[in-house]
Formats: sequence, C-alpha cells, structure tokens
Amino acid sequence: MNEKSILACETVDLNEEEGSLVILDQTKLPGEAKLLHLTEIHDIRDAIYTLKVRGAPAIGIAGAFGLYLEAMKINANDWEEFYHQLHEAKEYLNASRPTAVNLSWALERMENVATSNKFKPLAEIRELLRRECLAIKSEDTETCRLIGEHGLTLIHDGAGILTHCNAGQLATSKYGTALAPIHLGRERGMNFRVYCDETRPLLQGARLSAFELMADGVDTTLICDNMASQVMKNGWVDAVFVGCDRAAANGDACNKIGTSGLAILAKHYGVPFYVFCPASTVDMNTKTGHDIVIEQRPPEEITEMWYSRRMAPEGVKVYNPAFDVTENELISGIVTEFGIARPPYSESLKEILTTGGKPSSPRP
Amino acid sequence: MNEKSILACETVDLNEEEGSLVILDQTKLPGEAKLLHLTEIHDIRDAIYTLKVRGAPAIGIAGAFGLYLEAMKINANDWEEFYHQLHEAKEYLNASRPTAVNLSWALERMENVATSNKFKPLAEIRELLRRECLAIKSEDTETCRLIGEHGLTLIHDGAGILTHCNAGQLATSKYGTALAPIHLGRERGMNFRVYCDETRPLLQGARLSAFELMADGVDTTLICDNMASQVMKNGWVDAVFVGCDRAAANGDACNKIGTSGLAILAKHYGVPFYVFCPASTVDMNTKTGHDIVIEQRPPEEITEMWYSRRMAPEGVKVYNPAFDVTENELISGIVTEFGIARPPYSESLKEILTTGGKPSSPRP
Repeated sequence: MNEKSILACETVDLNEEEGSLVILDQTKLPGEAKLLHLTEIHDIRDAIYTLKVRGAPAIGIAGAFGLYLEAMKINANDWEEFYHQLHEAKEYLNASRPTAVNLSWALERMENVATSNKFKPLAEIRELLRRECLAIKSEDTETCRLIGEHGLTLIHDGAGILTHCNAGQLATSKYGTALAPIHLGRERGMNFRVYCDETRPLLQGARLSAFELMADGVDTTLICDNMASQVMKNGWVDAVFVGCDRAAANGDACNKIGTSGLAILAKHYGVPFYVFCPASTVDMNTKTGHDIVIEQRPPEEITEMWYSRRMAPEGVKVYNPAFDVTENELISGIVTEFGIARPPYSESLKEILTTGGKPSSPRP
Repeated sequence: MNEKSILACETVDLNEEEGSLVILDQTKLPGEAKLLHLTEIHDIRDAIYTLKVRGAPAIGIAGAFGLYLEAMKINANDWEEFYHQLHEAKEYLNASRPTAVNLSWALERMENVATSNKFKPLAEIRELLRRECLAIKSEDTETCRLIGEHGLTLIHDGAGILTHCNAGQLATSKYGTALAPIHLGRERGMNFRVYCDETRPLLQGARLSAFELMADGVDTTLICDNMASQVMKNGWVDAVFVGCDRAAANGDACNKIGTSGLAILAKHYGVPFYVFCPASTVDMNTKTGHDIVIEQRPPEEITEMWYSRRMAPEGVKVYNPAFDVTENELISGIVTEFGIARPPYSESLKEILTTGGKPSSPRP
C-alpha cells in the first residue's frame, strides 16, 4: 500500500455487517498500514488509550461507534436495564482519555439520544443511536471542511506553516483541523511549506503529520521540537497552526504537550499563532485552562518506547504530561467551523457558540 | 560497572605507554561503559565527529591529545618537514566539528607551542607538546571547579535547575560547566532538583546528564524538550543552566539546538537564564552570533537513529542544525572561571578576558 492509498483509508469507520469499529492503526505508521477491526468494547477502549486511534475528533467518533456497537449487544428487556448497561459502557469508554472534550461530548450526545427517546421500543432506540454515531462522523467531515475554509483566509499560496503533533486527516474523519487549510488549499492547486515538529514522545508529527502531508504533495520539512525557535528565527514561518483538545470559555487552549512553548516562541518572533478546533471542542463549562485535567502518561513512553534500547538511566524520575495549556493572550485566533474567534475570547466564543457564527442581530 | 564506577572513569585521557587517546564511548551510555583506545588520527577525528567524545571542553582536550600523538609519529628530519605535517594534522582534526571554539582553541595552543619553539630540536618540541596537552586537561579541571564556585553563588540548597544537553563532567575533564555547581554542591552535602531536557535528536540529556546526575545522587527528573514550558509554568525551576560552544564578543551564545527556545521561555516565565563556559569559549574575534557557523547534521539522526524502525516517511526533508544562538539580551549572566559576566557583555566579557577576573585598577 503506498501513501496515497493509505490516506484513502478511513481513519475511523463503522463496519455494520461485522459489527466492528475499523481503524487505521496509527502506532504502526508510517511504516505499515494496518486496519484493525474491533468488536469488543475493551479492545476499543484500549485502542483509544494506546493511541491506535487518536486526535480529539477521531476519538470522539471512535467512542460513539464503540458505544453504538455495545448498544447492539446489550441483552435487556426494558429501558431501565438497557440504560444501566449503556451508561456503564459510556463511562468505561469515557475514562480512556480524560483531556480531550470530544470523547465525552460524543458519548454524551449518544446517551442523550437514548434518554430522550426512552419511551420508544429498544429496537428503535438502537436505530436512533446508529444514526447518531454516523451523523457525528459525517458532521465532522463537514466541520473540518469549513474550518479549512476559514483557515485558508489566513494564509497565501506558498506560505510557511509550522505545526505540532497531528491535527490532520488522521486525527479526524477528513481534512483535519489545523491541517484542513493545507489539504483544502491542495485541492485548489495551492502549495505550502509545512514544518512539522516531530512531537516527542509519541512522534505524531514525524510519523503522522509528515506522512499525510507528503501523501498530499505538500512541501514538508521535519524538525525536532527544540528546533522551532531556529526555524522561526530564520523567517521561514508565516503562521503557527495547531489543534486543540479542549478550549476553555476564556480561550485558554489545551493541546499536545509543547504547544504552550511554541506559542511563547511565536509571540517572541512576532509570528501569528492560531488554534483550530470544532466548536464542540470549546467547553463553556470549563472557565479557564486551570480547570482542565492534564493526562499524565507512563515514563516508558520517554525512556524506552520506539527505541532499540533504553535511552535513560534505570530508575530516573520522568515527568510526562500529555498536554499543556496555552493562555488565551498568546493566541491570535481560534478557528472553528463557524468562523474565527478573536480576543477577547470570553465574548467571541460565546457569540460563536450561541449563534453558530451568524451575526446575532442584523446590522442596520 | 555501575554508575559510580563509570563516572570514576576519565571522560578523555592520554595513555602514553600505548600512545593512545582513551575515551569513554558516550554513544553507548547509559547502557554500556566502553573505553576506546584510539591510536590513529582518523579514528580520533571520527570519534569527535560521531560524538563518541563530545562537549566543547572535552573535544578540545581530545583534539590536543590527538595532535600530540600525531606529533610523536611524524617522520621528519627538520622543522619545515615536521611543521608541514603537524599543521596538516591540526587542520584535519579541526575540520571534524566547526562550531565549538574549544577544539580550534586547543589545537591553536598546541601549534603555537611548536612554532614558538621552532629553533629547538624536534625531540624537545615533542616534549613541549606533551606538556601542553596535559596542561590543557589539568587547567580544564581547575577551570570547571572555579566555574562551579561562581555558579554556586546563584543557587540555594534544594533549588530547581533546568538544564539542556550535557554540559557536565562527561563534557569536560571533571565537574562540567553548567553542571559544575551541582556536582560541587553535592561534595558539600547540598542537593538540587534538576530537570534534564532529553535533548533531541542525540538525547545527551537523557543518556548523559540524567546518568551523571543520578550517579552523583542528584534528584533528577527527565523531560522531553517540549515539556520545559510546563515545568517552568509549574514553578519548579529557579534557574536555567546551560553550557556554551562559542560565545561572541557581544555575549551572544551558541549552544546545543534548543537553547535559544529555552531562553525565550525563561524570559516569559521570569526565570533567570545562565550560560556556563570557560573563558576560552568566548571568541572575541566573533563579533555577534550571526558570525558563528552552525553545523548541519545528517537527517538520519532525526528519522532513524536510536530507533528500532524508521519513524518518518521516506524522502521527507529534514532540517537538523546542531546548535542555535541565544541573543545576549536573553542571558542573565555568563559564568566563567574568572567570575560572572553581566550585561552589557561587550564590556564585561572584555574586562574578564583582559584581567582574568581581577579588577583592572585598584579601587581607591
């Protein structure tokens, strides 16, 4: 399978015939394209935890598909019994990764469909859940396309973009978030120079972003995370584009570890810094970044994983937060499907979420 | 061999009996302690290029030992013949790594001993070269001890220090530069919390700094480079201590790639940022950082090295500068054996180099 054909695979899909969640195992990329067909809820949870499927929007879709598959298996005679098991499955999936809001948002959407139709026959509830999870996926594609449209207004053909981790097609159903403008621009014959932070420890930039950008014919350069300062200093970067796992009501944005450092560098060098996410990633119940739980991951991801031998002394303490929070004052704009929110975010995000990006009152 | 006994090994040594340069192969650490005995000049040059011996002061010492060993082999009847071959050997060694000034400084010192004694018998010149290379090493130990003394005035027992790459004992003959205050403090019963950037792509922080600090009983925490922002934000860092490969006359400091980014983060979080180096690292012929040649290294260091499989798509462009330049305005002080230079560096560095740290005129 070559790069192009791998990218024609769906990142995350539902195989209704065999009752499985189908994902492209992202831990094997870029060397191997392996599709996993998962039928058991613990395998689905494990795939999310071990990042076989990752990216905030993609794990939302995977979670919704997983919950639907579980709903099809529940052996229950009445609503109470059904709901009890559905809710348990939802909590089980939700606990796999705590930081990204999309997973809990998608699972919540699924549960709401069930509870608000509790008086209907179980067969009908299951059918509604089927439609809901498929809708979550197809809406994601349209959302990402719109994010790409808004993002494209920020750059010109040939621009230099620095990105971190993977907020691309492999993190969503299509296009991506931070990389959506790049892919959409490519469809229109544009090209860009994209600098990919390799993104330690899990190397999503090297393994996934560089991979999907090259497959799309983008002029791609791989760097280590600690080279971003020099790349900006060289004048090669017109804008920094990153994704987001949870944005707070005040515009603080939680994303892959290293993002906050990039934002500080961008400010120092006068480079605009944009955060890309679906509006569903904005969590109005989270007031500021301080309220976001940061997932801590195992030391071995830093000391051993991917390596042919252990690269740090035995017994060394390791600090391995998976995310960090970028303060709103470092962010030039938050790009959603409804448009680009600008500071002050407490107002602009509320406006966007309330009105879906349409002016709340007609201008005179 | 355990950690303590490995650290009792010399980083770089001369074995006169067998006519060899003896180094601890740093590419094998922390898993294996392998001493290399190198007798051939091309093996010595290769050991420097492939970072089997690394760290600005250590490669200066290794270069001087290598040139002495070559001088012992030169088959010449007169000074002209001897000098021609000595100079060629010097240029050959010097070309192994262009950025650190210490290598060319040490080789220059050796050549000067020869040329300023050109009328003496060749045997005597060889003896003077022997004394000079041994002096370069023993002076380095004393220099590092003094750097440690000055550095200790900047921190208190229990302080949190963030460091990058390895500017420790493994980069010098003893104590190190940036890590000298830590080791010297340990001798006096103090302890510190040290955060080691793993330092991609060659992992000197994970493999070497974490290793030598743990061997010395220091409270050591390993992080990925992109986690430094979060560690500073957590309030865990009282100061950033880094080494230096070449400092310009205006105080711009060239050090391992990633250092400039750290300095920008430190400024953002209000954390003092100190550069540690012997006075010989200050190159008054280099006016500013712009004049420093930055070594570019092979792409495979990022895409393949250390890994069990290739981690980036085939054919991806890679940018792999080994160093970057930190602007003088981001530096709180430059710590040398003669004291701590403070801004404005054009004056303070000149003062330190001219007077050896002693006041140039007695105060009234």
